[in-house]
Formats: sequence, C-alpha cells, structure tokens
Amino acid sequence: MNERDALRALAVDLPHAGDDAAVVGDTVITTDMLHERTDFPPGTTRYTAGWRAVGASLSDVAAMGAAATAAVAVYADAAFDEGDLDRFVAGAVDVCEAVDAEYVGGDLDTHDEFTTASTAIGDAPDAGAVTRSGARPGDALCVTGEWGRSAAALRLFKKDSGEAVERANDLFRFTPRVADGLALAGRATAMMDSSDGLARSLHQLAEASEVGFELDPDRLPVHPAVDAVAEGDEAERFELAAHFGEDFELVCALPDEAVEPAREACPGGLTRVGRVVDAAGGVTADGDPLPDRGYTHG
Amino acid sequence: MNERDALRALAVDLPHAGDDAAVVGDTVITTDMLHERTDFPPGTTRYTAGWRAVGASLSDVAAMGAAATAAVAVYADAAFDEGDLDRFVAGAVDVCEAVDAEYVGGDLDTHDEFTTASTAIGDAPDAGAVTRSGARPGDALCVTGEWGRSAAALRLFKKDSGEAVERANDLFRFTPRVADGLALAGRATAMMDSSDGLARSLHQLAEASEVGFELDPDRLPVHPAVDAVAEGDEAERFELAAHFGEDFELVCALPDEAVEPAREACPGGLTRVGRVVDAAGGVTADGDPLPDRGYTHG
Repeated sequence: MNERDALRALAVDLPHAGDDAAVVGDTVITTDMLHERTDFPPGTTRYTAGWRAVGASLSDVAAMGAAATAAVAVYADAAFDEGDLDRFVAGAVDVCEAVDAEYVGGDLDTHDEFTTASTAIGDAPDAGAVTRSGARPGDALCVTGEWGRSAAALRLFKKDSGEAVERANDLFRFTPRVADGLALAGRATAMMDSSDGLARSLHQLAEASEVGFELDPDRLPVHPAVDAVAEGDEAERFELAAHFGEDFELVCALPDEAVEPAREACPGGLTRVGRVVDAAGGVTADGDPLPDRGYTHG
Repeated sequence: MNERDALRALAVDLPHAGDDAAVVGDTVITTDMLHERTDFPPGTTRYTAGWRAVGASLSDVAAMGAAATAAVAVYADAAFDEGDLDRFVAGAVDVCEAVDAEYVGGDLDTHDEFTTASTAIGDAPDAGAVTRSGARPGDALCVTGEWGRSAAALRLFKKDSGEAVERANDLFRFTPRVADGLALAGRATAMMDSSDGLARSLHQLAEASEVGFELDPDRLPVHPAVDAVAEGDEAERFELAAHFGEDFELVCALPDEAVEPAREACPGGLTRVGRVVDAAGGVTADGDPLPDRGYTHG
C-alpha cells in the first residue's frame, strides 16, 4: 500500500482525515512530519527547517479558515548541537509570529535522521471551518500568492553557490496564509492548501466536492524565481508552478460575487484562475485533462 | 550536548518547556515522538504502539490537571501495511476513548524506522493548569497507581513465550491518568507524570519547586508484575519501580488536608509516599540520597 492509499484507508475510519485539519469543538488541529532526506535538501538551514516545518502545519490551519493560535514541534536528530537547536526554535518562533500564533515548545528525540513533527492548533471561524467538500458548479476557482517557490528553491539548492543556497532558503520560508484563510472563511465554499501541488489539489477538491474544475493556466500567478530557473521553457514553467507542490498556498472555490471582497481582504493576494464545473467535466487545463500527479522532471 | 542539556537549553527560550504541556489560553498542548528501536521492543503490537504513543501525550495533559479533548498522531514506517495501520489507529482510538477524548487523525510519513509523533490537547482546569513549581515544604508527596509496569513488561518482552509477550503488551497499555489529574486539579500544589521514573521526577519537581523530598520506599505501591520478575530481590524491585520510568503515573504534592478527598476522587488510586521538605534536605529515600538517574540493570 502506498502513502496515498494508506491515507484513503485512514479516511474511512477517521472523519477528519480528508481535510487539512481536524475540527474538535471550536478548535482545529493538524500534525505533519518532515525529515531531512525527503524534505530538507542539503543547504537548508536549521532556521529554515524550523520555519518550514511549523509553517506547514500553520498552513493546514489556514486552509480551514481558522485563526492559528499555537504550534509545537518535535526536534529529532542524531546529536543535539545547541546552535542548530536554537536556530530551529528561532525559525519556529518567527513563523508563528508571522501569523500571530505562539510557538510553545515541543519534544526532543534522538534519531538517526534529522526529523521534525509539528502540530498547530487554531480557533475555527464563527462561520464554521472551511472543508474541501462544498464547491459548487459555477463557483470561481481562486488561489492565493504566487506559485512555484519551492520548485525554484530546489533547483537553487542544487547549485554550488552560497548566494543561490541563501536565495533557496529565502524561498523555502513561505508565509502561511492564515490571514488570507481568515478572509476567505465564510466566503469560500471549499478550500485546501497546496501541499501536493495545484494539480493534485484540484483533483482532491474535485473528489471531495464531487465537481470538476476548468483551470486557465495563463492566469496562474507564477513566482518570478520560477522564470529564472525555467529559462524560457513554457512547459517546464507550468510543470514547476502547477505540479511541483509544497508552495503552501490556498486553493479555493468562491461564489462569483465573493471574489472581489475576498481579494481585497487577502494580504497574500487572490487570483481567479478558473471555475468549478460539473463532475462530468473532470479537471482540465485549457480544455485538456490535467493529470493528477506531482512533479516529474520535464 | 545530550538530550537533557538540550531540553534545559530549550527551557531558557520557551516558558512552557519545563512542564508536561504548554498552556495557550484555556488549552493545554503537548507532543512526543516515539520510535521502534528505543520505545517499542520486539513483540510490541501496532495496537499497543498506537495506544502507548497517544497515551504518552494524554498522560502529559493529565499531568496539568486538564481534561483531554483530542489527539492526533503521525504514523511513519518503511512501508504501509493496511492491517498494521488499522491496528495502530484502533489503539489510538481506544486509548482516547478510555479518557473521554477523541482521536481525530494525523499524518503518514515514509521512514526507515517505525516512528510515531503524537500530540494531545485538553481544556485547562478552572483552577488553572497544575505546574511543577508550586510544591511547599510540609505538603504530602503522593503518587497514582502502581509502579513498575513498563519495567516488568520489558522483561517479559525478552522471554521467548507468546504468553509472556501478550502479558507484556497488556502491561504496556497503561490508562492515562486523566480522571485522576482532574481530581487533583485545584488540590495539588505541583504535579508531573513519571515518564522518566519516580526518582528523576522527584528531582525535576524539586528543582522546579525549589524544595526537597523525603520518599518512604516502603509505601510505594509496586505493581504485582514487578514482584514476578524481581524474584524476591528487594533492591531490584525498588530499582524497577522507582528508577525505570515510563509508567505514566502522576507524582504530586498536596496539602495534608487535601490528601483524603483527593484519594477518594482518584479512580487510579492515590498513595501518600512521603513529604515535601526544604530544598536543603535534597531528595532522599529512607534518609539516603536518592540518585537522579533512570534505570540501570541491577
């Protein structure tokens, strides 16, 4: 069983397993594990790792339209270097401050591979947490921010240049869209964050809401760093922006009339990139089926 | 830097790092990582692992005197076997039900070694969360339950017998003392759970409260399974019950007059095992210094 099938199996037993966070009373809660080999390329500083690990959980809180309140994280490594630990905690503290939440500690563990497990909690919005299942045909499809930061960062981490690695670290430290999620709560009919890339997110939203999506690729806001690494290759540019994932932007469906007020209230920007259609329409980009897959090198 | 020094370093930066759980508004939150090599001996079923991993976090909520509300857990393994995953989730669900909390899901990760990271949240008591720092000379020293379960379990896991391993799994599935913690909230002046063993717990409470403790070893309630494995060796019996740890019982200080009403309200039992003295008295057992150490084979 692969991870995806395993997650589906979990979802059968656990009512919240299909959303970005679970809702318990007025509290949302979400947890994520990241580890060095798959999530932190060589060159990732411990400060960036702390920011990104905790940021991934805060992003899940944002995707529910909730106000993030606090986060904790486990720091596991083969040895504890005080400087490394301090930098990790500083990154965790700073990403929490960026979204008005509080980093309140965690646990340490001895582990061969540098591994983190972060958990964030938040207060569900008065209008109720936004799930993946409410999109309706006719709704606008919108996204926050600019896409492809993490894809561009991964290319830069591979360069043998201190400047490129520093830039890659900057790109890896995304701002979790908590303020945007709050602005979208009560307006969005369905929402999730884009951990697995835009394409996969659309397929997941489509499945949960029993709808289809028409994506207009030309409208997708692509991060300038992607242009720098795609070097004019349009297919590669779309691949990095739409399939790579780990951008932690929000993807949501909104009634037409809610788009403008929501856009004005979203500090990270909100762009209409398509529309919701009947399930029979499937998930398409420029009229062609958009494959349900993550990144493959172009 | 070893794990203990690292935790001390963390505590400088994070106000809640010295307690069993952090307090955020009316919510307490705590997280723990466990992994196969150090925490789940061969023979531990996935059901027991799910119970124990989530139970460890629920125990930290209990130690704050809070009402546990929910838990999440990351399940990481080299491969996802659906049966294993189902059994892990069943253990997590059952330990939550045992303390009136809800298991609401988690995350999956691919990892060489079977690893879990669990987080529990709870509602702080009206009287305020119980920390480690309020014990006063003259208070009674009390503990819940019976001691040495996990030590006895580890001995049984090593036996080449299906029956012994089954018994070891039973012993490993402790009941988190949430109901007892609720009964002690508003009564206990200081409290923690005994993850690191009674001896270490007393040293940690002593440091946080700036007091000393006189332990009367003869009063310590020892689990019958310890008698079975200690085979009449009194020193070994005390070693297993007081130094081994991972029993997840509560250790607390209480004003004399609160002991009887608290005992009546604790379903897991409450036993007076000594008293709080001035810091100058140090931590003693039968008048001799009680070393600040975990288990060493006798």
